Amino acid sequence: MKAAFIGLGAMGAPMAGHLHAKGLLAAVGNRTQARADALADELGVQAPHLAGIASACDIIALCVSADADVIGVVEALAPTLKKGAVVVDHSTVSPDTAKKAARIIGDAGGAFLDAPVSGGVEGAKNGKLSVMVGGEASVLETARPVLEAYAARVTHMGPVGSGQATKAVNQVLVAGIAQAVTEGLALGEALGLDADRLIPTLGAGAAGNWFLEKRGATMLRNEFSVGFKLALLHKDLGIVRGIAADAGTDRTIIEQSLADFAQLMSEGYGDDDISGLIRLKRKS
Amino acid sequence: MKAAFIGLGAMGAPMAGHLHAKGLLAAVGNRTQARADALADELGVQAPHLAGIASACDIIALCVSADADVIGVVEALAPTLKKGAVVVDHSTVSPDTAKKAARIIGDAGGAFLDAPVSGGVEGAKNGKLSVMVGGEASVLETARPVLEAYAARVTHMGPVGSGQATKAVNQVLVAGIAQAVTEGLALGEALGLDADRLIPTLGAGAAGNWFLEKRGATMLRNEFSVGFKLALLHKDLGIVRGIAADAGTDRTIIEQSLADFAQLMSEGYGDDDISGLIRLKRKS
Repeated sequence: MKAAFIGLGAMGAPMAGHLHAKGLLAAVGNRTQARADALADELGVQAPHLAGIASACDIIALCVSADADVIGVVEALAPTLKKGAVVVDHSTVSPDTAKKAARIIGDAGGAFLDAPVSGGVEGAKNGKLSVMVGGEASVLETARPVLEAYAARVTHMGPVGSGQATKAVNQVLVAGIAQAVTEGLALGEALGLDADRLIPTLGAGAAGNWFLEKRGATMLRNEFSVGFKLALLHKDLGIVRGIAADAGTDRTIIEQSLADFAQLMSEGYGDDDISGLIRLKRKS
Repeated sequence: MKAAFIGLGAMGAPMAGHLHAKGLLAAVGNRTQARADALADELGVQAPHLAGIASACDIIALCVSADADVIGVVEALAPTLKKGAVVVDHSTVSPDTAKKAARIIGDAGGAFLDAPVSGGVEGAKNGKLSVMVGGEASVLETARPVLEAYAARVTHMGPVGSGQATKAVNQVLVAGIAQAVTEGLALGEALGLDADRLIPTLGAGAAGNWFLEKRGATMLRNEFSVGFKLALLHKDLGIVRGIAADAGTDRTIIEQSLADFAQLMSEGYGDDDISGLIRLKRKS
């Protein structure tokens, strides 16, 4: 099995590295070709244009930023796609984009999985991502060795689009937990509580959560450079808003977080980790 | 060392049981005497009135509901308090109430710790609570064998009141995480995602948290009878609102949750677990 990885950002580059460690990685691709060339040189793999990846590889994983990027990549892969190839999209996009991409790849004789991930840059680096997969079960079995190279958990959620639907739910939790932890720690800070005692104490009880454990100490040191850029969560929540509006469920956290992250972006903090939300919590 | 436990509710009764298992429990007390008598019979300990507990025990732990209850108990203990006795309050009350209780007990020749807990009824039952302690370090060392009977973690946060300050922060996280998880799972439910796949998938990534793991499946089955009564979190958040107002930090989650839980209480759901918040999330 020859696998490729397209999109070598903060998530994609370490994910490609895990594929390489498992002996599965044949090629890498990236919008900025120089980054693909550099990683290809480092790992001893190829960095052809997308048409070359499409004709050579059995499993093609991608992790890019926006809906239009996903469609752009699958349209570039389709004309030369190897028959029976599986394209696995790890990006966070809308279920409709997943379905459109699946049609393009299906028409080209391949199969498609929408397979967004959760677990942050830590999860990508240590190969412990949670992968939420939409598509046919048999296609997932074909792609499973690739996914398991960087996953702690691979869950088949249902047909194409259900991976993205699951990720939409995930992002509501991520945004809401960020609201909770930043509002709480801003209060703890104002009350003069010692961060080194406060964070593990909170984490050991009913308030325990991933975000507190991974980002609590750094946010209280005003370190926002590592993690998940808040402009990207803002982009995701724009997708989630539409999904929740169609579903008719409550959007309190979604709307509050869209407004908060938009404000931070307007103040120049779009590249901060989402824990940068604490900037808005320190003053009422 | 003879220990007593006062306040035998959903948290207190199992905590007293752990003290008994460690051979430390000499007496129990409760506002409804019949409940104290029943547990005392079952465990083979005493159930005297508070004056009798005060004169006989070295460490007196209490876990009651409201600020007035704490002051009532310490005022009843003070006149006959054994010299050097330590009173440990596990209730969630204001830092000011903790300081007032500490003065009453100090004037009576004893020492006081504010030591609220987190970890839910599960944590109380399996002896894995997180205890956040305010008071003198030497007093905490005296009381430590009692606390460790039901704690996974005991953290000294600072002087009297800092345990309650920490608990205030904890309750902001608890309320905000409840907002996040209920809004997210209401969306997942509306999208038709399978709960048995959704909850562990979310839990394995950056959205992972205690509340999702413990209450996700039950709330999607509309089971709200086990856990933390939302009327009690509403009471706690009333205290937290004042603390955060004094501190000048943001109160978005606090105010939203106070309004939401008040609405549920007005609809007759005050005894539901806080996951009952999902009732408000299913329709926008």
